[in-house]
Amino acid sequence: MRTLVRSGRVVTAADEFVADVLVEGGRIAAVGVELGVDDATRVIDAEGCYVLPGGVDPHTHTDTPQLGTATCDDFTAASVAAACGGTTTQIDFALQEPGQSLHAAVETWHGKLADAPPVIDVGFHVSVTDLDHAGSPAELGELPGLGVTSFKLFMAYRGSIMVDDATLFRAMQVAARVGALVMVHAENGAAIDVLMRQALAEGRTAPRWHAATRPPATEGEAVNRAIQLAGLAGAPLYVVHVSCREALDPIARARRRGMAVWAETCPQYLLIDRSALDADGLEGAKYVFTPPPREQADRDALWQALATGLLDVVSTDHCPFRLADQKAMGSDDFSKIPNGAPGIEHRLALLHHFGVRGGRLAMSRLVDLLATRPARLFGLYPRKGTLAVGSDADLVVFDPEHRSTISAATQRTGSDYSLFEGIEVEGAPRTVMVRGQLVVEDGELVAEPGHGTFVRRARFGESLPIAAGVA
Amino acid sequence: MRTLVRSGRVVTAADEFVADVLVEGGRIAAVGVELGVDDATRVIDAEGCYVLPGGVDPHTHTDTPQLGTATCDDFTAASVAAACGGTTTQIDFALQEPGQSLHAAVETWHGKLADAPPVIDVGFHVSVTDLDHAGSPAELGELPGLGVTSFKLFMAYRGSIMVDDATLFRAMQVAARVGALVMVHAENGAAIDVLMRQALAEGRTAPRWHAATRPPATEGEAVNRAIQLAGLAGAPLYVVHVSCREALDPIARARRRGMAVWAETCPQYLLIDRSALDADGLEGAKYVFTPPPREQADRDALWQALATGLLDVVSTDHCPFRLADQKAMGSDDFSKIPNGAPGIEHRLALLHHFGVRGGRLAMSRLVDLLATRPARLFGLYPRKGTLAVGSDADLVVFDPEHRSTISAATQRTGSDYSLFEGIEVEGAPRTVMVRGQLVVEDGELVAEPGHGTFVRRARFGESLPIAAGVA
Amino acid sequence: MRTLVRSGRVVTAADEFVADVLVEGGRIAAVGVELGVDDATRVIDAEGCYVLPGGVDPHTHTDTPQLGTATCDDFTAASVAAACGGTTTQIDFALQEPGQSLHAAVETWHGKLADAPPVIDVGFHVSVTDLDHAGSPAELGELPGLGVTSFKLFMAYRGSIMVDDATLFRAMQVAARVGALVMVHAENGAAIDVLMRQALAEGRTAPRWHAATRPPATEGEAVNRAIQLAGLAGAPLYVVHVSCREALDPIARARRRGMAVWAETCPQYLLIDRSALDADGLEGAKYVFTPPPREQADRDALWQALATGLLDVVSTDHCPFRLADQKAMGSDDFSKIPNGAPGIEHRLALLHHFGVRGGRLAMSRLVDLLATRPARLFGLYPRKGTLAVGSDADLVVFDPEHRSTISAATQRTGSDYSLFEGIEVEGAPRTVMVRGQLVVEDGELVAEPGHGTFVRRARFGESLPIAAGVA
Amino acid sequence: MRTLVRSGRVVTAADEFVADVLVEGGRIAAVGVELGVDDATRVIDAEGCYVLPGGVDPHTHTDTPQLGTATCDDFTAASVAAACGGTTTQIDFALQEPGQSLHAAVETWHGKLADAPPVIDVGFHVSVTDLDHAGSPAELGELPGLGVTSFKLFMAYRGSIMVDDATLFRAMQVAARVGALVMVHAENGAAIDVLMRQALAEGRTAPRWHAATRPPATEGEAVNRAIQLAGLAGAPLYVVHVSCREALDPIARARRRGMAVWAETCPQYLLIDRSALDADGLEGAKYVFTPPPREQADRDALWQALATGLLDVVSTDHCPFRLADQKAMGSDDFSKIPNGAPGIEHRLALLHHFGVRGGRLAMSRLVDLLATRPARLFGLYPRKGTLAVGSDADLVVFDPEHRSTISAATQRTGSDYSLFEGIEVEGAPRTVMVRGQLVVEDGELVAEPGHGTFVRRARFGESLPIAAGVA
Repeated sequence: MRTLVRSGRVVTAADEFVADVLVEGGRIAAVGVELGVDDATRVIDAEGCYVLPGGVDPHTHTDTPQLGTATCDDFTAASVAAACGGTTTQIDFALQEPGQSLHAAVETWHGKLADAPPVIDVGFHVSVTDLDHAGSPAELGELPGLGVTSFKLFMAYRGSIMVDDATLFRAMQVAARVGALVMVHAENGAAIDVLMRQALAEGRTAPRWHAATRPPATEGEAVNRAIQLAGLAGAPLYVVHVSCREALDPIARARRRGMAVWAETCPQYLLIDRSALDADGLEGAKYVFTPPPREQADRDALWQALATGLLDVVSTDHCPFRLADQKAMGSDDFSKIPNGAPGIEHRLALLHHFGVRGGRLAMSRLVDLLATRPARLFGLYPRKGTLAVGSDADLVVFDPEHRSTISAATQRTGSDYSLFEGIEVEGAPRTVMVRGQLVVEDGELVAEPGHGTFVRRARFGESLPIAAGVA
Repeated sequence: MRTLVRSGRVVTAADEFVADVLVEGGRIAAVGVELGVDDATRVIDAEGCYVLPGGVDPHTHTDTPQLGTATCDDFTAASVAAACGGTTTQIDFALQEPGQSLHAAVETWHGKLADAPPVIDVGFHVSVTDLDHAGSPAELGELPGLGVTSFKLFMAYRGSIMVDDATLFRAMQVAARVGALVMVHAENGAAIDVLMRQALAEGRTAPRWHAATRPPATEGEAVNRAIQLAGLAGAPLYVVHVSCREALDPIARARRRGMAVWAETCPQYLLIDRSALDADGLEGAKYVFTPPPREQADRDALWQALATGLLDVVSTDHCPFRLADQKAMGSDDFSKIPNGAPGIEHRLALLHHFGVRGGRLAMSRLVDLLATRPARLFGLYPRKGTLAVGSDADLVVFDPEHRSTISAATQRTGSDYSLFEGIEVEGAPRTVMVRGQLVVEDGELVAEPGHGTFVRRARFGESLPIAAGVA
Repeated sequence: MRTLVRSGRVVTAADEFVADVLVEGGRIAAVGVELGVDDATRVIDAEGCYVLPGGVDPHTHTDTPQLGTATCDDFTAASVAAACGGTTTQIDFALQEPGQSLHAAVETWHGKLADAPPVIDVGFHVSVTDLDHAGSPAELGELPGLGVTSFKLFMAYRGSIMVDDATLFRAMQVAARVGALVMVHAENGAAIDVLMRQALAEGRTAPRWHAATRPPATEGEAVNRAIQLAGLAGAPLYVVHVSCREALDPIARARRRGMAVWAETCPQYLLIDRSALDADGLEGAKYVFTPPPREQADRDALWQALATGLLDVVSTDHCPFRLADQKAMGSDDFSKIPNGAPGIEHRLALLHHFGVRGGRLAMSRLVDLLATRPARLFGLYPRKGTLAVGSDADLVVFDPEHRSTISAATQRTGSDYSLFEGIEVEGAPRTVMVRGQLVVEDGELVAEPGHGTFVRRARFGESLPIAAGVA
Repeated sequence: MRTLVRSGRVVTAADEFVADVLVEGGRIAAVGVELGVDDATRVIDAEGCYVLPGGVDPHTHTDTPQLGTATCDDFTAASVAAACGGTTTQIDFALQEPGQSLHAAVETWHGKLADAPPVIDVGFHVSVTDLDHAGSPAELGELPGLGVTSFKLFMAYRGSIMVDDATLFRAMQVAARVGALVMVHAENGAAIDVLMRQALAEGRTAPRWHAATRPPATEGEAVNRAIQLAGLAGAPLYVVHVSCREALDPIARARRRGMAVWAETCPQYLLIDRSALDADGLEGAKYVFTPPPREQADRDALWQALATGLLDVVSTDHCPFRLADQKAMGSDDFSKIPNGAPGIEHRLALLHHFGVRGGRLAMSRLVDLLATRPARLFGLYPRKGTLAVGSDADLVVFDPEHRSTISAATQRTGSDYSLFEGIEVEGAPRTVMVRGQLVVEDGELVAEPGHGTFVRRARFGESLPIAAGVA
């Protein structure tokens, strides 16, 4: 079936122009004016709207255990929220449980995907927590062959999933050898652990101590450490959820020296102030995510870094919990509040509203940050992340004038609150297509779970072929 | 007439994919697979070739007086060389003569264009050398209304076209007010003048003293000064022909602070060593251009800056003189050698060969550097600089496997030597089209002078409309 | 005659200890406990007091023409104020008038010294305003032979004493050759001139426009320029009256690279806010000095720079005018207000109070900043600037507990106001000795004009011999 | 007994002058000319010589276990070597054995001192390797009360004495609370451990692999980490044995921000090239110390850092082993070579020869680096480290013209080789005095073991009182 998206304002990471987009066989067949249409062609009118590549969200935690509970979205739920928000590919973290083999971790995630089939396409990173049992490093080296081409390591959460520098460095060496991208959650977990224990020992249990025990220097230090070790190992590095100036500084120094270092931030670091944690009880618990929200000067620095290219990606770190029964676990002790918050659904609307309408980002830069750069860095490009001829027809018709108010009452995630409750934004996805099939129409889900599928990603620096004989 | 460029590998600043490009009415009508073709459509086979946006060279000196002579290409000659090299738009400097009004300077350049009509499109910057007679600043403010939206100032050539900081700063203030981009030739002309006089007084007249009297710190100092003054005036700044690490440093600092500063380098700074000037007599005189060629470490830094985004553009600073009768004027005194060299024809081939084939640049980055970024910075985008639907059909079919040897014997400029004589490069333009008309076929000129036309450029930060009702 | 200063707390740039100081023949003969004393020895009890090297103030403008008037202290007046404030050597600027020979400028200053003999020792810098008439550079090279071993150049005051970069660079070359220190008043005079003309044209004539037309970037730019040119010339550089972060940055970069660059600030930049200029009329005019006072963040940065060694000296830039008839010249036009303010008298008390008592500086660092470092940098050491055996007995008995209030009513300068009116400070000089002779006792002048004498200073990097056969 | 050191050139960290130094009661009584002398006064002629404060070496490892053996000097031996080299105070590391209490570690070191009494004064740091058993942090806080006011932690030697970041950070918190200085051996031990294991697994066992497995980035990373953690804890930090540019960079950034960070280097990093390790077998094993020797560019950077104040101290890291039976333990495996080398004896001669005579350091800067700064940083000042009145009469009469050749054959350490074998140096200590008693005369030891004593040092930032009623 052919579909023509007519007269929209097409935006790529480089260009912006009014044209029709012709979709055929699930891929972009042509972009142009007055493209031929026969009677069998479905026509979608996009006049007055942007036509964007579907978003790629490289940082989500779906159905993932933490502190004895698990994030409250399965892949069906997360992907529906994603789709409604204009994201057509998510990359989730297959988490290695203690003692578990890495293959088993990936298999577990395939099982989750099979059990709760998604409406958008899904890739996996692996979160490495243990390289010490026999065979682990070799196993890690095999994962790219299975399409899992990025390795995440946690420098925080001591006593749980934190790895030491030897594990981090060895994973980097494997990555360098097999063509994988290393991702780090960069916070000095040891110093944070000391500060947390001291705070709790002093009876400082309210949510605000979550931020107070994770000062910016712990993030800046860890970012620098990861960069130095990656440089030594010869591995490309991607720093997740950068939140503060202290973390931007070592990234800027690395870039200036031409090192292979990239980084992302998330909407919550661009928009939420540290003072949100000052609210007592569950209200404050909403904002317990890691790193914590920071100061206005940090947000200014992050916006500037997005504009100037120091940061490459905005992801969501979607990690949803319910307030009522999950966040509430820590009502007497901030260290027992599950860390994370929902976010997969509002990335595009928030970045368009505060970034583009706010005068901080051009539309083509927005597309780069939300789709093209993550697709390139994570081995999905050119199949995903752009509107090039031959690419998957993952696209969003985005109405920049549509006004809506973000609210837990209307969002799709299983979580019962939103970090952005009550914020009115201009711009919303109207139509979303995944590989040529309509998934969202007029803002409503129209696809069945299962349309989405696992994507084997290419190795770092390689392209994901889009079709035999074409590219 | 319709033209279909078939099955080439289309490259934009963001994407690279195999597709047909349909040209109609002088503009890009569509990009896609299996685009409909009727009998009247001319078909150009691009299989195995790149299809690139035509190059934009924002730094050329055509028929321009210097030291009592003038550069040896008129617009017909320069544009033919440009076209054969894959450049479809050049922006030349209308030079204000001492005491001349700025309008008159622009008129003079229009006259040169009329007298020697070009085969590619041509825009003008104005080179401001005097703002002190009544009306000058007001006049300068009027030029953007005539499509001359960038102001060049020389911080070097004391006693000739050098301006003092007051003139520079006032021009920046005007630029900030009317939406123009300020361009600076950044060298401390005063210090250089002292060093030159001292060298000559000591009998140091050989070409090598050209470099010795223009040490890198003179360039680095002036770049920093221009940045500070532009920041104060609120004007966007573009630093031409960056040659060394000392000049990159202040640009990097400015970028890190989010300042509106951009910069270019040229093939000669990427490829030629300072030692080329050690040759005596006319051989050394070939390499007398300004700033002079530098060290290997500088070239490494420049390549890295192109890759990481610290530099935005590669221009040519095409400023051709003949050896035999022009460069020879300074055979006994380096200060009498006209400064400059030919280069407009080999930019794309050199950057493809040493940049892309050399593993330093991706093809899409090459397109960005040679076409999209200069078009955006100089108010030509989206009409020029990309292959977006609706854009002018300025395009190049580039055969990456074609081997050729650069030589004065075969080049089109009126100059009788090449800086790159004897270098064998892989890749050459096969077909070049300007607004849909073939200008070069199989590497040979097929258009008549006069196909090219003056382009009124948009103000800084604004788009150049591509057609009523389209964008 | 022998004098014993008993039981004071002796402070040098390195040490602090309680001891007696024995003075004989105008020099320090010994420092120790229980030094032998005969009946003929005068004993000064310093118990509970500091014994400090007399201050060296390397930045004063005595009886110096400006805007048709002249600073209101002659050498007798300035030196009395200096002595009472604990300064025992001042270095004044012999200003070259337009067209005047440099020798004549120095002779003029010798005349001023003879006409109004000082009570403290006096050295001269030369302020070079013109190197263009025949013989000037050669003449400049001769000045160190006359004990004038530092050359000041103004990068501001366009149309008056500002020099262009060629003159600055040539003076630096001479300095490098003959062993002189180059001093720069670093502000971009051209940009400031443009801003001043524009302000006046818009009727902005109040004192606050003095600051608004001299933004920090004009200072930062000029500092960087001076550093780059000095590096090129191989000359040591000293930046006077640093006022802001923008100026500290290039100094820090230069230091990190090991360049021969030093800098001073003054009490007014450490203590006075830009808002002082907001007062209308004469009140605001008090604060018209150059560079203007800046923001709190600048003051914090300057204090830190004094503590960490980024700044080396605190001078006063004593440049006194009377409000009533001199500052008043600009009551309708800030550009006609003579630039400068009195300050020579309160440097030590202010720095002790706000620096040492304020917890920002150690006493030995204070001595370094006010005496030892300026003596070393300006060729007075070890004769001046320390309490070493053999050094001139220029010393101050300083009572740190004495409280006083700074006021125009009690100060010695001929000026009729103080920048620091009403500030209560802890600590005051009780006794001041110049070459062993008492000049101040119990805070009152006890010497006759003429005790002070001209000091021929050593070339840069050389020591000033303290006595034949001793050092 | 009184001693007069006559007519030497006295050098302090600030001054240099010819004078007599009178010693009485073990302390400096006076410095001056023609000081009164009675018949009972011993007179030492120092004409033509420097009179320097005795050196303070804050980094020695005496009789210290490592890899199943121990350094081969006890306190008698080490102190004799120190004294002969012009060092009058050493600060050694009391090493906490696994599971040992910190008090026991200090007691053990007191025992070593009693068993092998020294000829110079001795202080102790504590090397913390374990804070995890009950009471350790409290115990650590008590050590400053015992005169042990600096805590050393190793970020390298994984599996042995390396601490993790939690232990490091907790020790820093204690230090901040009780007024101790934190010292770090800064190398990323985890990455080094990985590299060492890999090298050995590949059969790379020669000494050169010692350097190859400790690349500069491992040092730079750890320095930055220590700085960030110290800043967070509010503790002052001292980085030991800086060897490379990568380590200087974060120190420079910290200094620029006014952080409480200081650092030392050692003669071996100033003088020995990495290629020394290329020698096979025992010859290469001589140079197995940690960090390893680096490149020429690093040595240039270190010398510059000493001159400009970025580095504050030169220590020796005296850690002597015998080649024949100790270094030989690793003849088949570089990881089994004890790390360290002798050096306590030649610091002053090497720094005078290569630093002062080499034109890189002034004499007063040398005194600062070897005596005054370490005394100040480690709570010995003003009792030690200077020649102030009232200070201990620890002094060195140093003959700058004496030539000697460094050789294992003539040195005093128990080690059987020297890193500096065969180097001819100008300048040697002639007479050394500790608290007024002659320890070395004409280069030969004249004191009995036991003259030296343990020194209780003051807390960080505090002075060590020199005598009741004096200071």
